[in-house]
Amino acid sequence: MNEFDLINKIKPKYYKQPTLIKGIGDDGAVFNSQCKQTVIAVDTFVENIHFTEETMSMFHVGYRSLAAAVSDLAAMGAMPAFYLASVILPTRDRSVVYESIFRGMDTFAAKYKMDLIGGDTVSGSVLALSITVIGYVEKNKIHYRHHAKNHDIVFVTGTLGDSQAGLYLLQNKKTVSNGHYFIKRHQQPEPRVNFAQQLTDLKRVSLNDISDGIVNELYEIAEASKVNLLIDESLIPKHKDLMEFPKNLVNEWIYYGGEDFELVGTVPAKDWKQVKLIASQTNTPVTKIGSVNNTLHKSIGKVFLKKDDSINLLNRSGYIHFE
Amino acid sequence: MNEFDLINKIKPKYYKQPTLIKGIGDDGAVFNSQCKQTVIAVDTFVENIHFTEETMSMFHVGYRSLAAAVSDLAAMGAMPAFYLASVILPTRDRSVVYESIFRGMDTFAAKYKMDLIGGDTVSGSVLALSITVIGYVEKNKIHYRHHAKNHDIVFVTGTLGDSQAGLYLLQNKKTVSNGHYFIKRHQQPEPRVNFAQQLTDLKRVSLNDISDGIVNELYEIAEASKVNLLIDESLIPKHKDLMEFPKNLVNEWIYYGGEDFELVGTVPAKDWKQVKLIASQTNTPVTKIGSVNNTLHKSIGKVFLKKDDSINLLNRSGYIHFE
Repeated sequence: MNEFDLINKIKPKYYKQPTLIKGIGDDGAVFNSQCKQTVIAVDTFVENIHFTEETMSMFHVGYRSLAAAVSDLAAMGAMPAFYLASVILPTRDRSVVYESIFRGMDTFAAKYKMDLIGGDTVSGSVLALSITVIGYVEKNKIHYRHHAKNHDIVFVTGTLGDSQAGLYLLQNKKTVSNGHYFIKRHQQPEPRVNFAQQLTDLKRVSLNDISDGIVNELYEIAEASKVNLLIDESLIPKHKDLMEFPKNLVNEWIYYGGEDFELVGTVPAKDWKQVKLIASQTNTPVTKIGSVNNTLHKSIGKVFLKKDDSINLLNRSGYIHFE
Repeated sequence: MNEFDLINKIKPKYYKQPTLIKGIGDDGAVFNSQCKQTVIAVDTFVENIHFTEETMSMFHVGYRSLAAAVSDLAAMGAMPAFYLASVILPTRDRSVVYESIFRGMDTFAAKYKMDLIGGDTVSGSVLALSITVIGYVEKNKIHYRHHAKNHDIVFVTGTLGDSQAGLYLLQNKKTVSNGHYFIKRHQQPEPRVNFAQQLTDLKRVSLNDISDGIVNELYEIAEASKVNLLIDESLIPKHKDLMEFPKNLVNEWIYYGGEDFELVGTVPAKDWKQVKLIASQTNTPVTKIGSVNNTLHKSIGKVFLKKDDSINLLNRSGYIHFE
């Protein structure tokens, strides 16, 4: 089966986005952004680095790759519209692998009526996906990292550490209560698109998605906004069954684990009530975990943790792809 | 050196495109298409499949990857504006490889004031690049494949087979007159952006870039436009020194070789004079090689070659990535 046959297998039969002018079938895809701003992000996912055959089926590889890329759009407040998928495919079981990956992407894409509008498929010795996602946002409604200001509330969605707990179960063949929940959080993360969308009604929100661990994401906000952040260990939201895992691992997962694709951000204290309302309307758990506090330290761009009665600087040693 | 350090090395110090709102440094890049339509394409390039250490330096890998992707924008009539680069990087000489690749891309990008606005860098066992390119085109000015009509002129830019001739020299350590010319055509192809841009003044142009061999590209136009195409072997433009290579290889390269990133297309006969004028203004060699001729055969979507006094159907066996 050659590239053309593969593409015909996954080419959409119809498109859903009203701004699309030309999808798959020419040298490029064409769309019309009208009065909105276009947000674009790319995410790459490589076998034996980001996943293995034992931790993900090919369906999950597709689903999770697109979900991770869309999480970046969510963190900007953009509504997902299109994606392009570049696939490096080893020769083994090529057609089956390809179809499963695209079925996974398609299943995720359907949630937001996203259209597959292009891509590239080449052979190679390692399975890898590079997903480009495109979304729209109204002018001046973007959740930039540099939007945090002193006295803002720091909040996070969902619970942290679940994805790494799921990976641990898959890699160590362990069982815990609700093991299926943790595994699903690893294989099929759900970016907080609708919640982030609704937040665009607020004037000033800083927002990051948690792909590399909350500490790293908080540092990115602190540095971009030139503020210090203080979070409270006792407020970090955890799933009730996370305590069944080894305690030292749990702490590592919560602060540095990443891949939960939850959102962390800041809003002015006066808007906190509105955030909670939006969270309730979009069925999104949201927790206040701290505040912006520039009086904590002379230098700025730092993240501190309050634990019991002491406050300590958090090490920025989140997951880094090369380590 | 971790991913953050690598990104800081290649992050642009300033941006050139007036429609860019936010470049590298948040979860996604943001741009404003204003009244134009946005064209997007992605191209992937894998070591030991598309290039080897002996055929390309890392600078060339970067240059050629971006040039190939931009060639897709040219074929749509779009003006290049942005690119995102996803890189899978083996651990060997990481920092040097990375900088050379981005220097290659940057050198090409500067020709069109393109901005690097995002990407992703991950480690992996094989070197691979996936480049997403974005360009703008005025409404209703796109050069779609389906625009060809009966009696149109078929034309091609530049000369064909040069890139494969260059590859042959690199792989076989041969020398010919102007060997450097052929090698440069392989390592640093120049997509016909300005010529394709100017063609948007014409009402109806079909256009493809020659990435997979002219026969394949002609078939794509013939099928999309539901026409038959007839090209004349004696009219195909060849570099004068191509005859120094083995004749059977030269024929293979010309019809099925690809990677010259020249343009092939059709225009109404009445516009041919204007095409030649635009070619002259943009310093682009252009040659009439045939015509759209629907009376040749009962079925449509076919490509025929006139050679001496006979006309034969061309086999569609252009380069396919998986073969």
